Amino acid sequence: MKLHGYWRSSATWRVRIALAYKGIEHEYIPVNIIRDGGEQHLDTYGAVNPMRQVPVLEIEVGGAPLRLAQSLAIIEFLDERFPTPRLLPEDRYLRARTRQLAEIINAGIQPFQNLGTSLHLREAFGVDDKTFSHRYIERGLAAFQAVAEETAGRYCVGDEVSMADACLVPQLYASRRFGVDVSPYPTLLRIEEACMLLPAFQAAHPDRQPDAPKQ
Amino acid sequence: MKLHGYWRSSATWRVRIALAYKGIEHEYIPVNIIRDGGEQHLDTYGAVNPMRQVPVLEIEVGGAPLRLAQSLAIIEFLDERFPTPRLLPEDRYLRARTRQLAEIINAGIQPFQNLGTSLHLREAFGVDDKTFSHRYIERGLAAFQAVAEETAGRYCVGDEVSMADACLVPQLYASRRFGVDVSPYPTLLRIEEACMLLPAFQAAHPDRQPDAPKQ
Repeated sequence: MKLHGYWRSSATWRVRIALAYKGIEHEYIPVNIIRDGGEQHLDTYGAVNPMRQVPVLEIEVGGAPLRLAQSLAIIEFLDERFPTPRLLPEDRYLRARTRQLAEIINAGIQPFQNLGTSLHLREAFGVDDKTFSHRYIERGLAAFQAVAEETAGRYCVGDEVSMADACLVPQLYASRRFGVDVSPYPTLLRIEEACMLLPAFQAAHPDRQPDAPKQ
Repeated sequence: MKLHGYWRSSATWRVRIALAYKGIEHEYIPVNIIRDGGEQHLDTYGAVNPMRQVPVLEIEVGGAPLRLAQSLAIIEFLDERFPTPRLLPEDRYLRARTRQLAEIINAGIQPFQNLGTSLHLREAFGVDDKTFSHRYIERGLAAFQAVAEETAGRYCVGDEVSMADACLVPQLYASRRFGVDVSPYPTLLRIEEACMLLPAFQAAHPDRQPDAPKQ
C-alpha cells in the first residue's frame, strides 16, 4: 500500500491519521505540490489522479494498481478493509453525524482554503485570498462546533476517535497557519488536545513527515 | 421523514434521487434560498442546519427530531437504513470508487459553483464568478469522466445506479445552466441519458418539485 501525499496537506494528513490509528503499514510517496508550480501537474501524475490532488492511496488489486483519491473515500475504504479500531461509530445515527462533520470540513471549508484556490483567486482576479478563506474557515468551524456539541464526549462523537477527529485536527492547524483566531471554538480546542495525546495523531503530524523541511 | 430543500439545489436533488430510487415516503419542506436574501439565513433555520445550507433530512429518533445535513452523509444514511435497492456497490473497491466520484462533484465542483460563493465573489471582490466557476466545473467533469471510464457500464459504476449517478445528473444540469459546454464529456452524457429513463430520476427533476416556478 502506498500513500501519495504532501507533508502539510490537510487532506493527506487526515489519511495519515487513519493509517496510523489502524496501524497499517504503507510506503509514503511525497508529491511536492509547491516546487516548480507543483509536481501534481506533471504528465505522469495525471494517471495517478486526474484531479491532480493529494492524497492518493495506491493498492494492488488482482495484480494491477488501484489508485484511490478523495480523502474521505479513502478513509471509508480503510475502515471497511481494516475495521479495528473503527473510525465510524457502530450506531447508524452517529455514523451519519460523523460523516456530516467530516463533510463540513471536506466540502465546506477545505475547497476555499486550498492552495490552488488561493493562488488562482490571487493571480487571476487579484482577490485577497486570506480575507476570502477566513470567511469560510470561520463559518465552517462555528457550524462544526455547533453540530459537534450535540455528540461530543472526549472526541467529536462520544469517547471514540472517528473520521470527524481526523478532519478536525488538520483543519485547526491550517486555520492557525492562515491567521484565523480559533479562540471562539473551545469545544474543538479541547477535542484537539485530547487527540494530540494519542500516538497516532502525533505520528501523523506534518513536522514528523520525511518531506517536511528540516528545522 | 422530512426533507428541507430547494427545487434547483443540486445537493437537494441528489437526495431526492436517493429517496425516489428507494421509494421512501417523506414530506418536502421548501426553503427558498433566493427570496429576501435566502430563508436559510432566518434565525429559525440556524437550528435546522448551522451551515445554513440545504438539504437537511429530518427524522425522529426516540421521539426527538434528528436533523442530518450534507447530501453525501444523508445518502449514506439512507443506504444503510433502506439497503434495497442499494446506492453503493457491494464490492469494496467499487464502493470506494463510487465515493471518490461523488466527492469529485461534492467537494471538487459544487463549492465553487454554489450560489453563496458566486454572490460573495461578485459582491465582495468584483470577481466574474462565471469565469471562476467554469474553471472548476470543467476540471471536475474532465476528471470525473477519466475516473468513471474505468468502471462505467450503463451507469457510472457498472450497470447499477449508484450515488455517483445521483451526483452526476444534477451536476450536468447545473453545468449547462451556467453556460459550460458539456460536449467534451460524451461518456457522462450517455450515462445521464440512461439515468433519465428511470422514473426515480424523472420524479426528482427540479421542474417536478412543488416549489418550482409555474411554467
